Amino acid sequence: MEKRVRARDMNIKIGVMKTGKYNAITDVEGVGVGHSTIIEGEGALVIGKGPIRTGVTAIVPHQGNIYEDKVRAAVYAYNAYGKAVGLPQVNHMGVIETPILLTDTLNVWIVADALIDYMYEVMNVKVMSINPVVGETNGSYLNDSIGRHVRKRHVFEALRKAYSQDGVGPVEEGNVGGGTPMSGFELKGGIGTSSRVTNEFSLGVLVQLNFGKREDLRIDGVPVGMELSDVEPRGKQRSNSIMIIVATDLKLTSQQLWKIAKRAMLGVARTGSYGSSTSGDFVIAFSTSKRDLDSLIESIQKDTGRRKETIEADESFLNPVFKATVEATEEAIVNALFKAETMIGRDFHIRKAIPLDRVREIMAKYGRI
Amino acid sequence: MEKRVRARDMNIKIGVMKTGKYNAITDVEGVGVGHSTIIEGEGALVIGKGPIRTGVTAIVPHQGNIYEDKVRAAVYAYNAYGKAVGLPQVNHMGVIETPILLTDTLNVWIVADALIDYMYEVMNVKVMSINPVVGETNGSYLNDSIGRHVRKRHVFEALRKAYSQDGVGPVEEGNVGGGTPMSGFELKGGIGTSSRVTNEFSLGVLVQLNFGKREDLRIDGVPVGMELSDVEPRGKQRSNSIMIIVATDLKLTSQQLWKIAKRAMLGVARTGSYGSSTSGDFVIAFSTSKRDLDSLIESIQKDTGRRKETIEADESFLNPVFKATVEATEEAIVNALFKAETMIGRDFHIRKAIPLDRVREIMAKYGRI
Amino acid sequence: MEKRVRARDMNIKIGVMKTGKYNAITDVEGVGVGHSTIIEGEGALVIGKGPIRTGVTAIVPHQGNIYEDKVRAAVYAYNAYGKAVGLPQVNHMGVIETPILLTDTLNVWIVADALIDYMYEVMNVKVMSINPVVGETNGSYLNDSIGRHVRKRHVFEALRKAYSQDGVGPVEEGNVGGGTPMSGFELKGGIGTSSRVTNEFSLGVLVQLNFGKREDLRIDGVPVGMELSDVEPRGKQRSNSIMIIVATDLKLTSQQLWKIAKRAMLGVARTGSYGSSTSGDFVIAFSTSKRDLDSLIESIQKDTGRRKETIEADESFLNPVFKATVEATEEAIVNALFKAETMIGRDFHIRKAIPLDRVREIMAKYGRI
Amino acid sequence: MEKRVRARDMNIKIGVMKTGKYNAITDVEGVGVGHSTIIEGEGALVIGKGPIRTGVTAIVPHQGNIYEDKVRAAVYAYNAYGKAVGLPQVNHMGVIETPILLTDTLNVWIVADALIDYMYEVMNVKVMSINPVVGETNGSYLNDSIGRHVRKRHVFEALRKAYSQDGVGPVEEGNVGGGTPMSGFELKGGIGTSSRVTNEFSLGVLVQLNFGKREDLRIDGVPVGMELSDVEPRGKQRSNSIMIIVATDLKLTSQQLWKIAKRAMLGVARTGSYGSSTSGDFVIAFSTSKRDLDSLIESIQKDTGRRKETIEADESFLNPVFKATVEATEEAIVNALFKAETMIGRDFHIRKAIPLDRVREIMAKYGRI
Repeated sequence: MEKRVRARDMNIKIGVMKTGKYNAITDVEGVGVGHSTIIEGEGALVIGKGPIRTGVTAIVPHQGNIYEDKVRAAVYAYNAYGKAVGLPQVNHMGVIETPILLTDTLNVWIVADALIDYMYEVMNVKVMSINPVVGETNGSYLNDSIGRHVRKRHVFEALRKAYSQDGVGPVEEGNVGGGTPMSGFELKGGIGTSSRVTNEFSLGVLVQLNFGKREDLRIDGVPVGMELSDVEPRGKQRSNSIMIIVATDLKLTSQQLWKIAKRAMLGVARTGSYGSSTSGDFVIAFSTSKRDLDSLIESIQKDTGRRKETIEADESFLNPVFKATVEATEEAIVNALFKAETMIGRDFHIRKAIPLDRVREIMAKYGRI
Repeated sequence: MEKRVRARDMNIKIGVMKTGKYNAITDVEGVGVGHSTIIEGEGALVIGKGPIRTGVTAIVPHQGNIYEDKVRAAVYAYNAYGKAVGLPQVNHMGVIETPILLTDTLNVWIVADALIDYMYEVMNVKVMSINPVVGETNGSYLNDSIGRHVRKRHVFEALRKAYSQDGVGPVEEGNVGGGTPMSGFELKGGIGTSSRVTNEFSLGVLVQLNFGKREDLRIDGVPVGMELSDVEPRGKQRSNSIMIIVATDLKLTSQQLWKIAKRAMLGVARTGSYGSSTSGDFVIAFSTSKRDLDSLIESIQKDTGRRKETIEADESFLNPVFKATVEATEEAIVNALFKAETMIGRDFHIRKAIPLDRVREIMAKYGRI
Repeated sequence: MEKRVRARDMNIKIGVMKTGKYNAITDVEGVGVGHSTIIEGEGALVIGKGPIRTGVTAIVPHQGNIYEDKVRAAVYAYNAYGKAVGLPQVNHMGVIETPILLTDTLNVWIVADALIDYMYEVMNVKVMSINPVVGETNGSYLNDSIGRHVRKRHVFEALRKAYSQDGVGPVEEGNVGGGTPMSGFELKGGIGTSSRVTNEFSLGVLVQLNFGKREDLRIDGVPVGMELSDVEPRGKQRSNSIMIIVATDLKLTSQQLWKIAKRAMLGVARTGSYGSSTSGDFVIAFSTSKRDLDSLIESIQKDTGRRKETIEADESFLNPVFKATVEATEEAIVNALFKAETMIGRDFHIRKAIPLDRVREIMAKYGRI
Repeated sequence: MEKRVRARDMNIKIGVMKTGKYNAITDVEGVGVGHSTIIEGEGALVIGKGPIRTGVTAIVPHQGNIYEDKVRAAVYAYNAYGKAVGLPQVNHMGVIETPILLTDTLNVWIVADALIDYMYEVMNVKVMSINPVVGETNGSYLNDSIGRHVRKRHVFEALRKAYSQDGVGPVEEGNVGGGTPMSGFELKGGIGTSSRVTNEFSLGVLVQLNFGKREDLRIDGVPVGMELSDVEPRGKQRSNSIMIIVATDLKLTSQQLWKIAKRAMLGVARTGSYGSSTSGDFVIAFSTSKRDLDSLIESIQKDTGRRKETIEADESFLNPVFKATVEATEEAIVNALFKAETMIGRDFHIRKAIPLDRVREIMAKYGRI
C-alpha cells in the first residue's frame, strides 16, 4: 500500500506563510486534539448493528477548565444545513464554554449529552446550564449512521486524549475520530489540519472533510479532480459538508473571530467547492487570547508606515490573520485527503484513498512541484 | 384553592381581534399539542434522583407525516442564549421536518435523540439525516435539571397525544409538559396558549413561559407586578427565557414567517420584558399553508381601496397577521400565569401561583374590567 | 392654545429609573443635538415648490472630531424598510465616524452628500472615504417630500448648533428638524427624547416618531388611542417608521451596543406598535466610552452577591442598561407626541396635536395619575 | 499597444459550463447595461477640479418600468465595508425597484439622488418613496474622488444606454463607467462580465473590480500574480473592494437569490482574494423570473433519478446555478483585468494593464492553454 503523506511531504506548498512546528491546530499553544475511532463489522447494513465506521474528535481550546475559563469565539455558517449543536449561543455570547466535539451526523445529541456528563463529572462544573458545542458531517455512505453507535465512553476517551501531553502534539489525520467514515470529492476524506505561524501570532485549522464532487477538486489551483475522474468506484455523495475549526492565540473580539471564520470559506472555495445546497458548511473560530495585538499592529506599522490608530480603526491588522486562515484551511483539506486511507464500509461501499503517486505526477505536469 | 381561569374568563381582553374556538394554537387546523408531565419526589435535591418536576410538550404542525410533508417555517432568536436544537437549519432551509418539542434545559439532547427514534420507528422515515427541533427553558429552580429525567417514553407519550383527537382540541396550560417547572415574574409559569381567527386566516401561539422579574409584570398595560410585589416567597429567578411557537394556516414564505416571528417579541414586551441578558427568547413560526393569500389581500383591498399589486408588493397584507401575533403572544403569556398552580419543587423551593382574586381587584382598580 | 408639556410635566412616569438633568439624550456627556427646521408655503402641493415642512436634526456623539475619534456603535434594523444611509458599515466595523443626521425620506442622499462636505470643509478630514450616517422617516403627508428641499446650508446649520453650548443642553422636541412633518398614531409626531441616569451610567434616547395607528396608542399601558378615536381629522398614515438613537457613556463593544439597540424596540412595543410592514424601524446605538464597566459590575455584585467574573461572563451587567433603554424609548415617544403642535401641511393636510387635557383625564380615569 | 482580449479569446476556459451569446450579464434576456465614462484633465490633484477618472454604470433588470415591475432580489455583504446605498431594504423586502448603478466611492449619494430624479422624471413613478440601489468601489488612486464629479446628466446617460438596443447586447469592459478608475491586483481593473447558459436557465455576472494584492492573483488556479510581481509601477492599493451583480432568469425566492449571491464570493476566492479588512465585497443578485423551475428540476431528476419533491425540498436544483455563479464571477474578474488598459490618473499615478502576452506565456508554462 502506498504510504500516506501530507501535502508538504510532497512539496506542495499552499500559500506563502510559514507553518508551525506540527503544521496542526495544536501549534496554537494549549489547544489539544483527541480522537476516539470506532470500526466494527463488515457487510450489509443492519441498522443498529453496523457495520460501524464512526467516532468522535475532541478539540480543547486550552488545557484548563474551559467552563471557568471560557474562550472568545464565533461561528460562521456558510450553508446552515446541518445538525451542529450549541452554535446560536456561541455567536450570541461570543464565547465557548465546553470542548468542541466532531462526530457523525445523528450522533450529535448523544455526544452533546455525554459532553454535559463530562462537564459535571470530570470538570466538576457547578451550574444549572451549559452550552455544549458539537459539530457533524454525514458519514452514512460508509457507516450505520442511523444506528448512532457513539457512546459516552467514546466521548470521554476523545476528551481524555485531548487533555493530555499527546493531545497537544502532532495530530492524527484521515480516518480517525469524527472523520472516520467521511468522504471528500468522492474519494476518502476525514480529519485534516494545518497551521500558519508568524512572530506575531499562531493560527491553526482542523477540518472534518466530507464534501465535493470529483471533477471539482483543485489542489493549489491544479485541476487534480479532472485528472482523476477515472478513479473508481466513486459512489455519488449526496451529503456534502465540512466542519472547520479555527484556533488562534490572538486576543480578538467575537466579531473579529467571526470575520476570521468567514475567511475559512475562501480556503474551501480554492479546493473546488461551489457550496452545494445540502452541504453544511460551518466554521467555529476561537481564541486562546494569549497574545495581545501590539506586536502584530507594530509589525504592520513597520511594513506600511501607517499610524497605529489607523491600523486599529480599519482592522487591517487582521489581514495576515485572514491570509493565514485561507491558507491553512486549504491545506487542512488537502491533508485530510492525503492521509485518509481506502475504506470499505456498510453494504460494501468503498471510498478510495486519493492515489498519491498520480497526484504527484499531475502536480508535476502542471508545473507545480 | 382558588380556581384557575384563563384571561378571558376574567374578562380580560387583550387587543381587539377575535379568538378561535379553543383560543389555542390548535385553532390552526391540524395543529396538535400533547404533554408528558413528570412529577416525582419531594425535598432536598439529589442530582440524578430528584425531586423531578419536568416533562415534554409536543407541537405537531399537522396530523400527517411531517417529514414527507414539511411545513414552511422560520426562527427568530431575539436573545440567542439557549440550548434549543435544530434552529439554524430551519432558518436556512425554511422548513420544519419534525414535530417541535419543548422541555427543560439540559434535556434537549436526549429529547432530540428520542425524536429521531420516533421519526424512524413510528414515522418510518427512510433517510440518513433528519433535523429535529427541540426548545427549552431552564426549570432548575424547581426541578433536578442536571439529572435529566425525560426519557424516550415521555417523548413518545407527548407525541402520541399530539397525534390524536385530543391533541387537536383544547390545550392544557400551566404546569404541564415542558412547562412543568417553569416560572414567570417570580410566580409560577409554564405553558400558555391563545389564538386569533379572522375570515381570512387563523393564527395560534403557544408559549413556555419562564422569564420575568415580579415588578415588571404588566397585564394588558396594568402594572400588576408592582401591585403584587408582596406575594411571597419569591426566590430570584436567574434563568429567564421564553419559547414561543406561532402557527398559521396562511401560505407564506419562510421570510414572511420570520417577520411574523419577530412580532411575537412585541407581545412579550407588553407583558414587561426588557430582554434580560440571560433570557433565551426564541420564536419558531410555521405555516400549514392551507390557506392562500387571496381572500386576505382582497379584504385589505376592500378596506383601503389600494391596488392588489401594491398590497402584495409592500406586504401590507401581513399587518393583521402581525397584530394577531402580538395579541395572541401577550394573551398566551397571561394564560400561562393564570393556569399555573403553586408548585413546591427541589429543596422546598416554592413558586406561588399568581393570586387571581387580587389580579381581578387590580384590573378593576385600574379601570380595565 | 393648549400649552405643550412633556410626559413628566403631567406626572406620567414611565418605568422606575431616574431621568438625567435634561431628561434628554444630551444627558450623556458630550452628546449634542441641533435642528434646522424649514417651514414655507401653504396650500396645494406643487412638487419642487412646496408647501415645505421639513428639516434636519444632527446628533453628535461628542464635541470633538468624530472622524479622528470614532465612537463604538451598532445598528439594529427591526424592520429594514427604509432609506437610511451608512448602516451596513456601522455594523460591520462597529464604529460611527460622522455625526448622525435625521431628515425626511428622499432627502437622505442630499443630506449625506452635504455631510461629506462638512467632514472635508469643516472637520478637515484628510481621507479618501468616509461613511456618513443619515436616517429618515417619511413626512410626505404634510411635506413636499419629492421636492427634496433640504440643502447643504441646513445640514451645516443643524451641525453648527449640535456643536455648541446650546447643543449639549435641553433638546427641542416636536415639530423641529427632521421631525418637522412627522406623524404619530395619526396625530402630530416628530422629535422626542428622554434619558435614564444612575450612579454607574447615563443613557439617552432620541426618536424621530412617524408611526402608528390611532387605536393602538398606549401611554404607560393605558389605551389612550382607543379613547381618542374621535379626534379628527385623521388622514390615514401609510408610511410608518421610527428612527431611534441611543447614546450611552458606558464603554461597550459593538455587539453589546447591538443588544442595547434591540431593546429599544421593546419600548416601541409598549406604545402600541405591532411593527407594520412598511414601517422602517431602525435603532442606532453608540457609546462615548467615557465610563468603564467597573462600578456598574460592582453595583450588581453588591445587589446580587454573585461573582464579578460571572457577571461579566453572562453580561447580566447589561440588564439595567436594557431597562433604561426600554424606559427611555417609551418616554421619548410620548414626549414627541406631547410636544408636537398641530400642523397644516401640503394640500391642507392636518395633523392634530394630541389633546393633552384629554390625555390627562384619560390617565386619571385609568388610575395612573 | 497590445490588443486587449477577453479570457476566452486567449483560450482560458474557467470551469465547465457554457457561456451565453455575449458571455455577459446581458445574456439574461432583458438585462441592459450602459456606461457613462468621464475622463478629464491630467497632472496634480486639485480637489474639485480633477484629474477626473470616473463614471457610472447602469444595470437594468428588464426593459420595462422597474418600479411597477419590481424584480426579486437579495444582497450578500461578504465584507460590509462600503457606502453602497439601498441594500438593507432590498434584503428586507426581497425586491429591487430601481436600476442598479455603480460608481466611484463618494459619488453614491449624488448618483442615488439623480436616480430618484430619473424615477420621477423619466419613469413617471407616482409614489412618495423609492429605494434606489447604488454600489461603489473606491477609485481615488487615479481619480479626484473627493471632488465627486458625477452629475445627473451622467446618470441619465448611463440609464439611457442601458434602456436601449445597444444596452442589451455585448457589454463594454475595462475602463468604463463606474469601473473607469478602478484597480485590480495592483494592475488596472474595472468592469468585467461573463455568463453561463444551459437549456434550463441563464445566469450572468458583472463586476466592478477594485481589489487585490499582486502576488495573490490566480487565473484558473495558475499563480499569475507571483509571476508578474516585477510589473511596475505598482502603487499600493489600500481601498480594496468588489461590487458583483448576478442576474438570472430563474424564478427564485429572495432567500434563494441570497444563497446564489453568497456563491459569488467563492468565485472571488479563486482569483486570490482573502477578503482584506477594508475591502467592501457586496453581491446583489436579482431574477427576471422569466423561467420557472420545472425544466431545471426535471433535468436534475433525469440525471440523478431522485424524486421531484426531494429535489425541491433540499434545493439541490440550485447546484448548477451555484456552479454557474462561481464560474461566471471568476471569469468576469479575469475579463475586467484583461480588457482594462493602462491608465494615468491624478498625481501621475499609473495603473498598468495586465500584460497579456506574458499571461499567455504563464498559462502555457503551467500547462493550462
